[in-house]
Amino acid sequence: MESILSLCRRRGFVFQSSEIYGGIAGFFDYGPLGCELKKNIKELWWKDMVQRREDVVGLDCSVIMHPRVWKASGHVDGFSDPMVDCRESKLRYRADQLFFAAVSVGGKKIGYVTELDDVAMQSHAEAAAQKLKAKLSIQGEMEPIYLRPIAEASPEELTQIPSPATGTPGVLTAPRAFNLMFSTQVGALSDAASTAYLRPETAQGIFVNFKNVADTSRMKIPFGIAQIGRAFRNEITPRNFIFRSREFEQMEMEYFIAPDADWRRIHGEWTELRLNWYRSIGIRGELLGVDVHSMEKLAHYSRACTDITFRYPFGAQEIEGIAARGDFDLSRHRECGGKNLEYFDEETRSHYLPHVIEPSAGVDRVFLAILCSAYDEDEIGGERRIVLRLCPRLAPIKVAVFPLLKNKADLVDLSRIIFLRLRHHWNVDWDAAGAIGRRYRRMDEIGTPYAVTVDFESLENGTVTVRERDSASQIRISQEELLPFFTEKLET
Amino acid sequence: MESILSLCRRRGFVFQSSEIYGGIAGFFDYGPLGCELKKNIKELWWKDMVQRREDVVGLDCSVIMHPRVWKASGHVDGFSDPMVDCRESKLRYRADQLFFAAVSVGGKKIGYVTELDDVAMQSHAEAAAQKLKAKLSIQGEMEPIYLRPIAEASPEELTQIPSPATGTPGVLTAPRAFNLMFSTQVGALSDAASTAYLRPETAQGIFVNFKNVADTSRMKIPFGIAQIGRAFRNEITPRNFIFRSREFEQMEMEYFIAPDADWRRIHGEWTELRLNWYRSIGIRGELLGVDVHSMEKLAHYSRACTDITFRYPFGAQEIEGIAARGDFDLSRHRECGGKNLEYFDEETRSHYLPHVIEPSAGVDRVFLAILCSAYDEDEIGGERRIVLRLCPRLAPIKVAVFPLLKNKADLVDLSRIIFLRLRHHWNVDWDAAGAIGRRYRRMDEIGTPYAVTVDFESLENGTVTVRERDSASQIRISQEELLPFFTEKLET
Repeated sequence: MESILSLCRRRGFVFQSSEIYGGIAGFFDYGPLGCELKKNIKELWWKDMVQRREDVVGLDCSVIMHPRVWKASGHVDGFSDPMVDCRESKLRYRADQLFFAAVSVGGKKIGYVTELDDVAMQSHAEAAAQKLKAKLSIQGEMEPIYLRPIAEASPEELTQIPSPATGTPGVLTAPRAFNLMFSTQVGALSDAASTAYLRPETAQGIFVNFKNVADTSRMKIPFGIAQIGRAFRNEITPRNFIFRSREFEQMEMEYFIAPDADWRRIHGEWTELRLNWYRSIGIRGELLGVDVHSMEKLAHYSRACTDITFRYPFGAQEIEGIAARGDFDLSRHRECGGKNLEYFDEETRSHYLPHVIEPSAGVDRVFLAILCSAYDEDEIGGERRIVLRLCPRLAPIKVAVFPLLKNKADLVDLSRIIFLRLRHHWNVDWDAAGAIGRRYRRMDEIGTPYAVTVDFESLENGTVTVRERDSASQIRISQEELLPFFTEKLET
Repeated sequence: MESILSLCRRRGFVFQSSEIYGGIAGFFDYGPLGCELKKNIKELWWKDMVQRREDVVGLDCSVIMHPRVWKASGHVDGFSDPMVDCRESKLRYRADQLFFAAVSVGGKKIGYVTELDDVAMQSHAEAAAQKLKAKLSIQGEMEPIYLRPIAEASPEELTQIPSPATGTPGVLTAPRAFNLMFSTQVGALSDAASTAYLRPETAQGIFVNFKNVADTSRMKIPFGIAQIGRAFRNEITPRNFIFRSREFEQMEMEYFIAPDADWRRIHGEWTELRLNWYRSIGIRGELLGVDVHSMEKLAHYSRACTDITFRYPFGAQEIEGIAARGDFDLSRHRECGGKNLEYFDEETRSHYLPHVIEPSAGVDRVFLAILCSAYDEDEIGGERRIVLRLCPRLAPIKVAVFPLLKNKADLVDLSRIIFLRLRHHWNVDWDAAGAIGRRYRRMDEIGTPYAVTVDFESLENGTVTVRERDSASQIRISQEELLPFFTEKLET
C-alpha cells in the first residue's frame, strides 16, 4: 500500500485535497494522470452499461434534490451512526468503536476504563485498570476485565465511565444518532424550512425520475437507467486512502423489471456480468471475490445482495454491490410524493410498480483496485523497475513517442510528426529528456502500454521501434503501420 | 424559448429536479438525451483543451475543500449579495431589486410605498401611492413619486417603509451581506470549527494544486491546468431555465504564464481560440458575440476580461469569460497557506509566481446555447417538422437504423445486423415503430444526423438508404460502406 500511495503522490495520480492548507480529512483531488484514469473507468462503464446496451439509458441528476426525497428514501431518519460525544473535549466517537469495562478489585468496583476499538484494546484496558488500581492505592486481586460496547452502558454507569479523550468520568453522552448526510440551506428564505442535503447516493435520483424517463424515452420494461456522479457522506472515520472518503463518485444502475419476473435469475445474471466486467478491464481474477449477504444482514426491503469484492492490501472489501430491492424505493416515493409512478405494460395490459436490480459501484474504489491489481515491480535487463500493468483502454497515456537523442534535429522532427499524428486519436505523450532507458521507466511506472522510438534506422527506412510495456520487448514497424497497429491494440 | 422548453421536456433532455415533489428551484436533471449531449460537450472540450494540447493537463478536485481556500480567494468575505429580510414573512429580497418611494401630498409626507424591480414599477408605485392617499382619506395634490433603491433608505425611513410581502411598515431590515456559497458541516466534531463550503467555482481547486501539478507533471510554463466539474451558488433568483441555476457545471482552465509574458497577446489568442471553438461545435456565428469589460467593471486584481456571449431568446448573455487575473489567486494562497508556491523557471533560472489567463465556461449555458442555435422548424415534402441541427459530434444519437416495415422478418433481421455492427462504435438507435416518416421526424427532433433504412432493395442487392437530417436527402450505399462513411462523417 505504501508503494501505491507513494506512486500516486510522486506521479500526480491523487493528491490530498487542499494540501497547502494542511488537507481536509476524507477529501482527495485527482491529478493529471489520475483524472485521465478515472475518466477512462467511467467511460468504459458508460460504454458497456449504456451505449452498447439497448435496454439501458443514462441520467444525470443534481446533487442537491428536494429534501423530501431523502425523507421518503429513509435517509433522513435511518442513515445514521450512533455516536457518543465527549462533552468536555467536544470530540465525537462512533458508538460501535467505543468500549468500556468495570474495574473491580477483591469484589469491589473501583471505577471504569474506556478503550477505542483496536486489536490490542484488551491489553490496553488491562494496563489502564492496573494504573487505576495503583493510583487509588488499592490492594487485592483484580478481577478479569470484560470490555463491552458503550451502547450497553446503563445511565448509572455512564456517570462513571471516563472519556477516552480527557479521562474525566461522566462526560460521555449516551449514544445518539448522527446523520451521515451533509446538510445545507437552499434559497433566500432565512428559516429552517430550506434545509437540503447533498445526495449520499446517486440511486434516488434515478427513482424519482423513473416516470419521466419511462414516459419520454420509449423504453419498455425490463430496462435500466444508469447514472455516474458524486455522492457525499460525512463519514466519522474516513480511511484507507480513497477507499472510504467523504466525497466520492458512484456508477449506479437501476434495472427495472416486472413484479412477476424471475428476479433471482436476473440478479444472478447481473452479478455474473459485473464480475466479468472487472475482469475485462484487466483486474486480476484472483483478487476478485463474491460475498453473498446472509438474510440477516439484509435491510428489511432487500431480497438479496451480493458484493463484488477486491483483495486490497488492507483486506478484501466491496467494490460493487448488486442488490435486489423489490419495489421499496418506488413505492416509498409514490406514497410520499402522492404521484402515480406506475408503469403501463403494453404487452400484458397491466399497470404496476416495477421491481429493481441495482448494480452499484464506487469509482474511487475501482480506481484503487485497478492500481493495486496493476502495480508490479520486476527486473528488466538487470534493472529494477516499477510497472503499472494497466489494460490499454484504462491507461492515462496510450503511447509515448521518443526521439532516441534529444540533440539530433532529424530524430526530433520525425518523432514530432509521428507524435502529432497519433495524438489526434489518443492521449499520447512526447518526451526527449534523459536517457532512453529512463524514459521507458517513467512510462512503465504510469502504465503507458506502448512506446515508439525514432532512431537512426528510422531516418533510413522509415521504420520505428514499438516497445511493449509488460514484456519490454520491441518490434520494428513502419510509420504507416502505426495507426492501424494502435487502433487494434488500443480499441479492442 | 417555449418551444425549446417543450422539446426538452417532451423528449427527455432536461427535467426539473425532484419533480414528483413539486421541484426545487434552481436545480435540474438531465434525462437520457440531455446527459448524452452534455457528455459530448464536455468530451469535445476536454479533447480540444487537454488531450490535443501538449501544454495543458487535467485535474479533478473535490467539491468540498478546506474552508481556508475560500477565505483566501475572497469568497467568504466578498462573494455575497446585499439582502433585505422581511422580519414578518421571513422572505428575503435582493437589495438591488427592492425600491421605495416617499408619498407626499400637499408638501406633507403621508407614508411610503415599496416595489420590486420591474419594467412597470413606476406605474405600480404611483397606483400604490394613490391607494394609500385614498385609504388615509387625504385631500390635495400628490407630489411626483421618485423610486430609490432600498440601500439609500435611512434607518428612520426603514421604520416607515412597508414590506412588499405583508404591507406592514417597519419590518424590513437594512441590507445585509448574504453569502452565495452553500455551507455545510464536515466531520464528527460538533462545534462550529467544521464549517465548509460547496465550491462556487472550480478554478480555486486548480490554484491550490498548482504546485503539486507543476512538481509532478514535468510541465513547463507556459502551461494550463483544466478542470470540468460541478459548482454551486445559492442564487437568490435562479432564472432562465438552466442558464442561471444553483447547481451547474463549469469547464475552466488556468493558463499559467511568466510575469513578464505579453499577457495582452495571450489573452487575445485565447479569446480568439475559444470563440472559434464555439463555431467549431456548430453554434451559429451570428448568435455569438464578444463583450470586452470596461476597466471600471473589472475586479481590482483583474487586468482584462472578455465575455463570449450568445444571443439567447431572453437576450445576449455570457457563456464563457476569458479573464487575465495576474497573480492574484496564487499570491493570496501563498499568503494564507504560508507555503512557497513559486515556480522555478529552468530557462531563465528564476523563481516566480506565474500569472494566469482563465477561460471559464458554463456547461449548462453552452448546452442551452447549442439547443437554441440548433432548433429549427421547417417543411419537408409539405410537412412541418421540428429539427435540431446539431453538429454530428454533439448529437446524442449518431445514427438511427430502421427496417422499412416492422412485420417483415427479413427487413427486421438485416436492420438488426447493421444496427448491432454500428452500435459497437457509436450511440446508435434502432426503431421499427410507426410509419417511416414518423420515425424520421422523431429523429430530426432530437438531432440524429443520419438514418439508415433497410428496404426491399436491400434484400436484393445489399444497399441501404442513408438519409441526412438537415436536407432530408437520401443516398443509397452498400452495407459495407456504412462504417467508413460514418467514420468520416461523425469523427472529423
